[in-house]
Amino acid sequence: MAPNAQAGDARLYFELPSPFPMKRGGQLHDAHIAYETWGVLSPAHDNAVLILTGLSPSAHAASSSRDPSPGWWEAMIGPGKAIDTDRWFVICVNSLGSDKGSTCPASIDPASGKPYRLSFPELALEDVANAAHATVSHLGISRLGCLIGCSMGGMSALAYMLLHPGSVCAHISVDTAPQAQPFAIAIRSLQREAIRLDPRWDEGNYDIHAKDSNHYPDTGMSIARKLGVITYRSAMEWNGRFARIRLDSEQRADEPFAREFQVESYLEGHARRFVRHFDPNSYLYLSRASDWFDIAEYGHGSVLEGLKRICIDCAMVIGVSTDILFPLQQQEQIAEGLQAAGASVEFVALDSPQGHDAFLVDIDNYSRAIGGFLNRLASA
Amino acid sequence: MAPNAQAGDARLYFELPSPFPMKRGGQLHDAHIAYETWGVLSPAHDNAVLILTGLSPSAHAASSSRDPSPGWWEAMIGPGKAIDTDRWFVICVNSLGSDKGSTCPASIDPASGKPYRLSFPELALEDVANAAHATVSHLGISRLGCLIGCSMGGMSALAYMLLHPGSVCAHISVDTAPQAQPFAIAIRSLQREAIRLDPRWDEGNYDIHAKDSNHYPDTGMSIARKLGVITYRSAMEWNGRFARIRLDSEQRADEPFAREFQVESYLEGHARRFVRHFDPNSYLYLSRASDWFDIAEYGHGSVLEGLKRICIDCAMVIGVSTDILFPLQQQEQIAEGLQAAGASVEFVALDSPQGHDAFLVDIDNYSRAIGGFLNRLASA
Repeated sequence: MAPNAQAGDARLYFELPSPFPMKRGGQLHDAHIAYETWGVLSPAHDNAVLILTGLSPSAHAASSSRDPSPGWWEAMIGPGKAIDTDRWFVICVNSLGSDKGSTCPASIDPASGKPYRLSFPELALEDVANAAHATVSHLGISRLGCLIGCSMGGMSALAYMLLHPGSVCAHISVDTAPQAQPFAIAIRSLQREAIRLDPRWDEGNYDIHAKDSNHYPDTGMSIARKLGVITYRSAMEWNGRFARIRLDSEQRADEPFAREFQVESYLEGHARRFVRHFDPNSYLYLSRASDWFDIAEYGHGSVLEGLKRICIDCAMVIGVSTDILFPLQQQEQIAEGLQAAGASVEFVALDSPQGHDAFLVDIDNYSRAIGGFLNRLASA
Repeated sequence: MAPNAQAGDARLYFELPSPFPMKRGGQLHDAHIAYETWGVLSPAHDNAVLILTGLSPSAHAASSSRDPSPGWWEAMIGPGKAIDTDRWFVICVNSLGSDKGSTCPASIDPASGKPYRLSFPELALEDVANAAHATVSHLGISRLGCLIGCSMGGMSALAYMLLHPGSVCAHISVDTAPQAQPFAIAIRSLQREAIRLDPRWDEGNYDIHAKDSNHYPDTGMSIARKLGVITYRSAMEWNGRFARIRLDSEQRADEPFAREFQVESYLEGHARRFVRHFDPNSYLYLSRASDWFDIAEYGHGSVLEGLKRICIDCAMVIGVSTDILFPLQQQEQIAEGLQAAGASVEFVALDSPQGHDAFLVDIDNYSRAIGGFLNRLASA
């Protein structure tokens, strides 16, 4: 059952049709999706922009009167911003399987009255896409003005367009891939392994609300997050930002191999802010779903043929040369495939030094690209 | 005390002067260095080539009549090969601090009769260099014909040349760096953390000879090794080699999130071959020593000025465009610095797809470069 919205929480909840079938087998009962919206839906229902997120962000992409705390894409979304809420009705959906409000492995299984944990059915990004599509349909929107997908959300967006032909007019693909490549699979596999090998993960049976670290896989989550951050940024950025700067001596622990360089402290800060703010089982499910995604499944083994089955009017595909997790060649593939499918495609290759995370940091370049595309769309 | 050489073991041992002072403080008593040699030292003692290794290899760089098992650079060293043992007297030294025969944290501290473990003094690559230099001097060699350093050994080689002016005629720098950059520090810090957070590391007090995994940090070592392998190779190589190929169903464990892709199995194989074959404390010491190394310390904060203090005749500097751990720009820095110091420098930028490990795999290109350089040296 969807929780009731609370004061200071801008989240809305949509009850998915029950049972909700899952791609790889099994089904969910009484599942729900958390989402937020900004702006006003036009009478013709033709000004909707849907944002599908990366692995960890919530639906709180931007502040609103109900929840004034800054969102994860605060600089991009709002009145007069690149994703202009004076013009567009913007929806951000929390992925099915994420613990940021949607039904996930930490949710109560209505059949048992206990958390699903590893009894949650196998999750695919196609399920994430179908749940998002059901949410959008429920809002009375049959065709999105624009579908924006970032990182993992970009893969979910490809699934959305492929599984729901005619449901999207324009698409913005941000720092993503048409299939998981072995380097990204290796990174994610190692992140999962760090969690699974932590004895406190306990085969998924850790105490979800543990206050102490005796019954929660803090260690595994910390290693997983640090490895994530290493692959989300770039060596080039860090050379300029951290170089070989040391911590002050009072910041150093008096123990062998303690943190000594600023870059080590930076990673530790990221880990601390993450470890207790994302459910480890949810992380495992979404991580594996990312590995599994492969548009070539829909194209008889060919990425290009899979992409050619996507029917939209136009697209902007953005990538960054310093991204080691979703390398620029993969965005080129998406651009080529969508073009071959008949869409009018703009390809934007950025030199932002921040790596995969550039879309969260290099707001100038991303605003210019995304804002320009949406403005041309609105005036077309 | 140096162990006695055994049948089937080609290792020789050199007792370091005692006490042996360490750069960062403290000293070692009765320490020794393991090394191997190939070929014959010329009467003028002017045909010696010293090889300094990466973090994990032993001194067994090539087979010999005493130890016919293949060495870690078997394809490069031998009669008629790039490092031609018909012409050169080749020495490979096991780094001080490595558990492959030299004194290390797993060695017995003569003061206590117990293993040093974390009471081993802080280790710097300058100590590795000084111990190698003492070994070479003991062999009656005052000036090396050529000093070759690979990966971490390349940093040790820079320290060797800087700390012992006039001791090297020519230098071959292979896939290394003049200082550790933050990306490499971050990777190594996370590797160390995986080991240190493994409860079975037990603050360095694990059972060094443990047969079971209850008293040995298998988990931490496995994660550290897999992360190493990910950064030693390249995404490009893996796209061609593994793509998205699945394991056969009989190769898959029946458990959630089990290995499913070939690349995951490849990493597991690497980890299994490593975990019990390298002492975890030694790994921590050598890893931290790599972070600490910075030639700029000798140049008032400037890498270029530090390199300019190295006095040799000529050098070849080799790097690979796909190396993410020691990026090509760092080899360019070395080449520029040695040239500015007055050496005649050849810079070789390879496009090998194998990343940092190319020197172990792309034997064709490395043989051509190194063999050509050594031949020109011999005939000069």
